[in-house]
Amino acid sequence: MPAADARTVASLMAEADLQGSDGHGVIRLPQYLKRIRSGGVNLQPQITVAREKAAMALLHGDNGMGHLVMKRAAEIAIEKARNAGVAWVGTQWSNHAGPASLYARMMLPHDMIGLYFAVGNANHLPPWGGLEMLLSTNPIAAAIPAMEEPPIVLDMATTVAAYGKVKAKAARGEMMPEGWMIDREGRPLTDPRRANEGFLLPIGGYKGYGLALVVGLIAGTLNGAAMGRDVIDFNADAETPTNTGQAIVAIDPGAFGEVDDFKRAVDRVIRDLRSSERMPGVDRIRVPGERSHETILAQRRDGIVVPPSLMSALDRLAEQLEIPPLRTL
Amino acid sequence: MPAADARTVASLMAEADLQGSDGHGVIRLPQYLKRIRSGGVNLQPQITVAREKAAMALLHGDNGMGHLVMKRAAEIAIEKARNAGVAWVGTQWSNHAGPASLYARMMLPHDMIGLYFAVGNANHLPPWGGLEMLLSTNPIAAAIPAMEEPPIVLDMATTVAAYGKVKAKAARGEMMPEGWMIDREGRPLTDPRRANEGFLLPIGGYKGYGLALVVGLIAGTLNGAAMGRDVIDFNADAETPTNTGQAIVAIDPGAFGEVDDFKRAVDRVIRDLRSSERMPGVDRIRVPGERSHETILAQRRDGIVVPPSLMSALDRLAEQLEIPPLRTL
Repeated sequence: MPAADARTVASLMAEADLQGSDGHGVIRLPQYLKRIRSGGVNLQPQITVAREKAAMALLHGDNGMGHLVMKRAAEIAIEKARNAGVAWVGTQWSNHAGPASLYARMMLPHDMIGLYFAVGNANHLPPWGGLEMLLSTNPIAAAIPAMEEPPIVLDMATTVAAYGKVKAKAARGEMMPEGWMIDREGRPLTDPRRANEGFLLPIGGYKGYGLALVVGLIAGTLNGAAMGRDVIDFNADAETPTNTGQAIVAIDPGAFGEVDDFKRAVDRVIRDLRSSERMPGVDRIRVPGERSHETILAQRRDGIVVPPSLMSALDRLAEQLEIPPLRTL
Repeated sequence: MPAADARTVASLMAEADLQGSDGHGVIRLPQYLKRIRSGGVNLQPQITVAREKAAMALLHGDNGMGHLVMKRAAEIAIEKARNAGVAWVGTQWSNHAGPASLYARMMLPHDMIGLYFAVGNANHLPPWGGLEMLLSTNPIAAAIPAMEEPPIVLDMATTVAAYGKVKAKAARGEMMPEGWMIDREGRPLTDPRRANEGFLLPIGGYKGYGLALVVGLIAGTLNGAAMGRDVIDFNADAETPTNTGQAIVAIDPGAFGEVDDFKRAVDRVIRDLRSSERMPGVDRIRVPGERSHETILAQRRDGIVVPPSLMSALDRLAEQLEIPPLRTL
């Protein structure tokens, strides 16, 4: 792909690792590469604005890497929100773009609030009471700027556990707690090695199912992107374009009042929560985004931790591609 | 209050009952009246647009009935979305406005998608790991139009159970299932008569806490409305203005493509879900909004069911006010 695009994708993947989203960072390189080599991704995409109004755009990703499409979407949203106060940008013919919060976070340097919705790239969730996996864990992310406190950054799948967490339990040989998955009879499933015999549970039962459905409709269907039966399982199929749909919303607090007043009010809420009375045995009350903020600071200082198993996988990849391994750079 | 305003509020309360949101309909009349008689609501509000851009408005509700403020907010959102594609309208100095879905639904006759977020009028939720109830069950609603199928309408509190459901269990003398509430040591609390000794549990644990927080910040703090410690418990205090904050978003699918294509695609998703394979013992797979749609049709045909206990309460209210009781009208 063009060197500038490769740099953009690489830097967003590194940012994912930097913020501790290590399931969505450089660990995905082998999978992305497999898709690229299978011809499943367009390396020379013409990313274009297919539809546009004062407060919205629909971006056609031309089956390019999702990172490129979403970065562009976020930029357009920021620009439009500056004029219109709020802007919503949807994508079609996009691809997996890493962690949801990466794009919601892009609003923060502009003192804006970011919301992000996406259709996941594999269906793991049946409708409530059903057996057919017709829905993905469609994630929601939000980033809200504060003044002196770290920003609030929420990044959540609409299932109790993301599928990556199940894989991690299996890799560590641990059992899952009840409430993560059920089997085909609706009984709790706790052995992650049997994950393919059951389903992830949505948060709050039918509520999470409803939330996954709504996110899928506004991030997928609204954009003419894949949703439900159309979703391509990118683990099983590296060739068919995924037609991934995403949506990013930029909200300018400056349109609602003084930006600094808003950011100070967010600080107050954070401090009220943090200093409030704790349950026995709880040493600290956290707000969403606090842990990733600490991870960013620590890894910026000490470097990004790459576990040996991942380093070996990357070295093998480099060998296959006949390029110098990472550790020599 | 002016007769036209009274009619608007009454018709929205009746609509809440019509759609089966009977915890947010005419049952609230005694509480609203108590607040009105205590001087806690402004009966002659000047509802004004405090801030405005192409895709947003901030509405100052002047402490009027929430129904009046939110109806106006929805109307402005529809009008702005018609031009800008998407519009976001926030409220400050509003009040309890009934069920969340009532306002998201207002987009449907205009072939638009509605999203609604609100700060609840009493804090029932501590931060994750905490003991102080600093958050409300801040609801989320979404309404998405379909072509031949009933619309998708999601209306959910960010807790596993809404507080009204706990009250209903207590009234019926039933126990609650595990997972609805915990006590101050974090143990399951299942006796609804002991509800004041514990807390509602957020959906998906810390995820629901994060969601309630984000909803509170974008529906409350962003609008300069109450959030966190500032929230007035409208059950305990009928005098202090609540400064309730809400946010309504209108999205015009016509800006993203052909409206009919979108509505047909929503039909397809609904039908795929409904016709998919079911778990043993499940007789039907439902989509959010299906049950309320059936309730609307049935009650439009047969009239709205008012249980005898509610009818007596309304009769007593009429007697106090020296007006004719409902059953004589």
